[in-house]
Amino acid sequence: MARIVMKFGGTSMAGTERIRRVANIVRRQQAAGHEVAVVVSAMAGETDRLVNFCREANAMYDPAEYDVVVASGEQVTSGLLALTLQSLGCKARSWLGWQMPMKTVEAHSKARVESIDAPEMIAALERGEIAVIPGFQGVSAEGRIATLGRGGSDTSAVAVAAAIGADRCDIYTDVDGVYTTDPRIVAKARKQKAVTYEEMLELASVGAKVLQTRSVGLAMKEGVRVQVLSSFIDDDATPADEFPGTLIVSDEEMDQILKDSDMERQHVTGIAHDKNEAKIILTRVPDKPGAVAHIFEPLAGASINVDMIIQNVGRDKGETDVTFTVPQADLARAQALLEDKRSEIGFNRIITDDHIAKISVVGVGMKSHAGVASTMFKALADRGINIQAITTSEIKVSVIIDEDETELAVRVLHTAYGLDASDEAA
Amino acid sequence: MARIVMKFGGTSMAGTERIRRVANIVRRQQAAGHEVAVVVSAMAGETDRLVNFCREANAMYDPAEYDVVVASGEQVTSGLLALTLQSLGCKARSWLGWQMPMKTVEAHSKARVESIDAPEMIAALERGEIAVIPGFQGVSAEGRIATLGRGGSDTSAVAVAAAIGADRCDIYTDVDGVYTTDPRIVAKARKQKAVTYEEMLELASVGAKVLQTRSVGLAMKEGVRVQVLSSFIDDDATPADEFPGTLIVSDEEMDQILKDSDMERQHVTGIAHDKNEAKIILTRVPDKPGAVAHIFEPLAGASINVDMIIQNVGRDKGETDVTFTVPQADLARAQALLEDKRSEIGFNRIITDDHIAKISVVGVGMKSHAGVASTMFKALADRGINIQAITTSEIKVSVIIDEDETELAVRVLHTAYGLDASDEAA
Repeated sequence: MARIVMKFGGTSMAGTERIRRVANIVRRQQAAGHEVAVVVSAMAGETDRLVNFCREANAMYDPAEYDVVVASGEQVTSGLLALTLQSLGCKARSWLGWQMPMKTVEAHSKARVESIDAPEMIAALERGEIAVIPGFQGVSAEGRIATLGRGGSDTSAVAVAAAIGADRCDIYTDVDGVYTTDPRIVAKARKQKAVTYEEMLELASVGAKVLQTRSVGLAMKEGVRVQVLSSFIDDDATPADEFPGTLIVSDEEMDQILKDSDMERQHVTGIAHDKNEAKIILTRVPDKPGAVAHIFEPLAGASINVDMIIQNVGRDKGETDVTFTVPQADLARAQALLEDKRSEIGFNRIITDDHIAKISVVGVGMKSHAGVASTMFKALADRGINIQAITTSEIKVSVIIDEDETELAVRVLHTAYGLDASDEAA
Repeated sequence: MARIVMKFGGTSMAGTERIRRVANIVRRQQAAGHEVAVVVSAMAGETDRLVNFCREANAMYDPAEYDVVVASGEQVTSGLLALTLQSLGCKARSWLGWQMPMKTVEAHSKARVESIDAPEMIAALERGEIAVIPGFQGVSAEGRIATLGRGGSDTSAVAVAAAIGADRCDIYTDVDGVYTTDPRIVAKARKQKAVTYEEMLELASVGAKVLQTRSVGLAMKEGVRVQVLSSFIDDDATPADEFPGTLIVSDEEMDQILKDSDMERQHVTGIAHDKNEAKIILTRVPDKPGAVAHIFEPLAGASINVDMIIQNVGRDKGETDVTFTVPQADLARAQALLEDKRSEIGFNRIITDDHIAKISVVGVGMKSHAGVASTMFKALADRGINIQAITTSEIKVSVIIDEDETELAVRVLHTAYGLDASDEAA
């Protein structure tokens, strides 16, 4: 017997028919002897509808009232799933954010989970009652509804799993696991049995949109074992106790999994791409202390998230070109802010390019293996793909290339690192 | 300066445009120097949508989870109205049922307000903040959402008005007041300046669908002055401090209002009709102690609300015919229940008729004035309208007639009691 948190997204909750499907999956886990808590999103489209109401009501909306409105979507689906589970003969009840309670801190509409002290809910689980929890919502220190930001239901699920000491947090989504790369680009992409938290964090943050980044960070911090799996699995084909999806685990458990399946750790486990960045080059910035701070302070103040930063030696002495990337959606705003600060920063020109893509190779294995980066550069060069910028972390190498070459680059790298499905048997 | 509760129904809250209209009406009251709390319904149609979800999820739904789902409609509109008021420059916040808190007792989905202990909300009102309160919802002793039953927002408004010691509870609706009768039937129907709680109770319960009956009972018990008025009034035409609608007040205040306007109390203040009843006649029931109990116990057990009961002397000695009315919607169920108990009750035949109407004349004035009932019987007889049954209370006389004669009967009585608009000047 295990204690399991199951999380279902908006597509799975869109309408009473689909909720019935979800209820059957949940009942099956309980029937296998487990204690089950379920975290649910709002019906697909509902949160957008509610957000639009808020915008129409007040363009400069008060985040506390925004939270009152948008949290209602998950309230509805949690009640409906509890009702549906009851109709299948299960004991079930909904636990709203303020009822558990799931206490949050910081700003409304982007609150963070502080603590969940849920003795009553745990007692109910132990009595065999299924707990149904609306994702995305908690309660602030002032006793008001506070939402965790879009996609926050994944974080809710991991937070609940940590609070109740769950053996596993299963995130049901519209993909059936974490792949070596986007299967729509590379037909030979393989579903991974397991990845580490660190790998998943890098994959999530570079555009593999399977899990909310924050939820992975929380899982790593709290040591919650996560499984990503499809909500469209055939109920009866897979035993409830198998892991049909991809496990996201600690480095130590990863070692064990590899050992158990007699496999070696690969240097690169995934290749991600992200077309949502834009590049800004400021030319001939004075090469003196503090110059770079003048550039990035106003952007930080406007909550514009700067990703890669590269400082190039300029043509003239005492000057340098600074290149960095921002989300495409913030490009115009960033450009305006920098123009405002032109005299302060002292640059010559702003060159922008939103026709770029970031390609990243990720793998814990590269910590102990040299040559991963050079393999990347060589593979791209062999196909004539020009690298505009490079950044690296301990388990990741990212490059900026022309957006038109995204698919080619991903395929080339997938082969270069031996990730193609046919290689598996080799 | 006064403290005022304003309540807006689903039609007024249907969409952000209409909510902006409501916000303007609310702001105008505040600008007139009043402290304002607003109670809101869900957007028109929303509660039906949510109820349908519940039915689809589980036909035998758990009322506690039903409440979680359906209460979300008012949560949304309360947040949106607070946002809209803020956009107009007002300070405003929503107070959900569990935040105030509005404590309820008894069953979910038909809970009663037990107490509202709202020192924080009152302090906010005193600081000039508009309190926006979702109607229909409270919180149970177990800390779960409990709704007050359909139409419960009127009751919420009166309960809030009582709790915060409001000077008045204004119920904005799609009619502009309480009329002497249905203006769609009688063109000469007059809007009343004021009616008493007792009159309103009788009018509400006999089919004048302006206010939820329970809310009137609560207003009478708590001494809350209620005004019914139209949410479609021209904002700028009426001073904020006038009473454009109908006041619902105590007998004593009614005396004062009549005195101030130099008017005499009328014997009959309103004529109501109700086509939603059905008649059941059980023939040849043994005329012995306990026989009637055998009839009505099973109906009460099935929550079928029996209205008029008339026991006629039968043709044969020792037997009697029993006539009574039930809601049309319950007729088939009532008939089946009675058939089941045929031998126990010992009746001969069941005769049913759902083609009837109940016509009632109501007025506190009839307490001190004889002849009201005989005026009714004579006026109907003069037009050949056959009376099938009669019941009376201290301030009401009701008769059952053929449904086809409803409109004629209402018009005849409106004239007979001198209520026609042209009579006013006389």
